[in-house]
Amino acid sequence: MSLLVVGSVAFDAVETPHGKVDRMLGGAATYFSVAASYFTHVNLVGIVGTDFTEKDESIFRGRRVDTQGLERADGKTFFWAGQYSENMNERTTLATELNVFADFKPRLPEPYQSSTHIFLANIDPTLQASVLHQVKSRPKVVALDTMNYWIERTPKELRETLKHTDILVINDSETRQLSNEHNLFRAARHIFKLGPKALVIKRGEYGAMLVHQNRSFSVPAFPLEVVHDPTGAGDSFAGGFMGYLATARKVDDAALRRAMVYGSVMGSFAVEKFGLDRLRELKKSEISARARHFHKMTQFTL
Amino acid sequence: MSLLVVGSVAFDAVETPHGKVDRMLGGAATYFSVAASYFTHVNLVGIVGTDFTEKDESIFRGRRVDTQGLERADGKTFFWAGQYSENMNERTTLATELNVFADFKPRLPEPYQSSTHIFLANIDPTLQASVLHQVKSRPKVVALDTMNYWIERTPKELRETLKHTDILVINDSETRQLSNEHNLFRAARHIFKLGPKALVIKRGEYGAMLVHQNRSFSVPAFPLEVVHDPTGAGDSFAGGFMGYLATARKVDDAALRRAMVYGSVMGSFAVEKFGLDRLRELKKSEISARARHFHKMTQFTL
Repeated sequence: MSLLVVGSVAFDAVETPHGKVDRMLGGAATYFSVAASYFTHVNLVGIVGTDFTEKDESIFRGRRVDTQGLERADGKTFFWAGQYSENMNERTTLATELNVFADFKPRLPEPYQSSTHIFLANIDPTLQASVLHQVKSRPKVVALDTMNYWIERTPKELRETLKHTDILVINDSETRQLSNEHNLFRAARHIFKLGPKALVIKRGEYGAMLVHQNRSFSVPAFPLEVVHDPTGAGDSFAGGFMGYLATARKVDDAALRRAMVYGSVMGSFAVEKFGLDRLRELKKSEISARARHFHKMTQFTL
Repeated sequence: MSLLVVGSVAFDAVETPHGKVDRMLGGAATYFSVAASYFTHVNLVGIVGTDFTEKDESIFRGRRVDTQGLERADGKTFFWAGQYSENMNERTTLATELNVFADFKPRLPEPYQSSTHIFLANIDPTLQASVLHQVKSRPKVVALDTMNYWIERTPKELRETLKHTDILVINDSETRQLSNEHNLFRAARHIFKLGPKALVIKRGEYGAMLVHQNRSFSVPAFPLEVVHDPTGAGDSFAGGFMGYLATARKVDDAALRRAMVYGSVMGSFAVEKFGLDRLRELKKSEISARARHFHKMTQFTL
C-alpha cells in the first residue's frame, strides 16, 4: 500500500475572529500529508519556490512524508490570503498569488508510480488527469477534490478526470453546483453517472456524509466551542480519510465508515489552532480518543 | 405515564415546489398528537372554531388521542398560509389569522392534571406557564418549543417559563437567538443556565442534535430524495421524541438518544406527503424499519 497526494504547498495569510497570521505554511497537500502521516506513509508531489526554506520543510521531517516529489522552482511559493467572517461561515479571498504554482506540472518520481491510493487535491483537472497517466497499474483508490472554479471553467476536463475517480470528496455547494441538483441524494446519483462510486460531502459545522451504493452514512462535526482557524479542515479530513483507507485491508462499507470518522477526527483537530499548529503536535492517543468520542456521539441502541 | 400536548390546531394553506393545498388540517398540536399516538396515549389541549367539523376531528379517531381538552369556540379556527422556496430552505408566511386562537386560555380537564410528560408547543410563554400551574404534581418531563416571535417580544415571560422546562426543543436559529451565541455548544451552556437540562436542536436537512450533561448526540436527516411539504416536521419530531420518552422507564442518556431517533423517524415521514397525509397512514412496522435504517446510517466500529 502506498498513498500519494498531489496538490498545493503554500504560504497562507489568515484572519479569523480569533487571530491573524501574516504568513504561515499551508496548502492542501501540506495539510493532507501531515494528517495522513499519522496513519500511513505519504508520498507528496507539489511545487515550492526559493522562499521555501529548510525550516518550512521541517514540518515533514520525523513524519512518514516522502518529499522527493516536492519540486523546487525559481520564484516564489504559492500564496493565499483570506479572511473569515464573524461566524466563520464565509471566507473572503484577499489574495491568490499562484507564483511557481502557475507552471506546476506534476511529475511522479519512479517509486510513486506504483501508488495504490491517490488523493488528487484541488488543482486543475487536467493536471489531476496527468497524475493518473503516470501511474503504472490501476490504483486501488483514486479520490479527488475540486472547487467551483474548475466546475465552472473546465467542466469538460473535470468530467474526463472524474471518469477515473473512485471517490469524490467535496463540500455541499460544490456537490450542488456539479450536479445541478439541490437535493444531495439526487446529486449523488447524478455524480455516480460521471464515474465516482462514492461521494464524500464535507459539511463544515454539520459534519460529513458518505453516499455509496444507495447507502448513506453521516458523521456529525465534533462539538468544539471555539474554532480558531477553519483553513485546511477539508484537506485534513481528506488526509485522515485516505490515510486510514490506505491501511484498511478492504475498501468495504465498514472501512469507508471508519475512514469518514478518522477524516472527521483530523478535520476537527485542524481547526483548533491556526494553520498546522494543532495537527503537527498531535499524539496517536489523542486521535484514538477523539475517534472514540465520535463513537459516543453517534451510537444508540433501539 | 400520560402525555399531554398543548398547542395549535389549525387549517393550513401550503405551497411547495411539489404542490399546493388551499386548506388542510394542521397545527403543532395536531402533528404532535398524531405522531406521538403511535407510541403512547396523548391528551390534547387546544382550541378550534365552528368550522372544525366532525370530519376534521376524525384524524384523531381510532388513535390514542383524547380530545376532551379540545375546546370549541364561536368563530373560525386558526388559519396559516405559507409558501416554501424552491429549495425548501425558506418559507414565507402569507397569512396568519389567529381567529379563536387569539383568546385561547388552555384549560386542563381533570384527568390531564396528573400528566407525567408535557409538551408545550409553540404558543405564548405565559399560556405555556399557565398549563404547568394546572398540573398537580411535578411532571417527569416538561418539554417546550418556542420561536423568534416570543424570543423577541416576551423574553421575560419566556425566561420565567423556561425555569420550569426540562427539555427545550427548538431549531438552530432560535437557539442562536435565545442564547446570543453562534456556537451551538456555547449556546447550550447558556440555555442550561435558564432552566432546561437538555437542548434538542432541530436542524432540518442536517438532522437533529441533543446536548445535555456536557454530552452531545447527533442524528442525521433521513436521506429523502423528495421533500413534499416540510410543514409540521418539527412538531412531528417532537411527537416522536416525547411519545417514545413517555414509554421509557427512565429518562436517561440511552432513552433520550432513542427519543431523538424516533423523533427523526416521525419528522422524516411527515415531510413525505402534504400535511398529515403520510403520518395518518403509517404502520408501526414502517416506524420500526425506519428507526433501523437510522441505525444503519450512523453506526460504525473502530
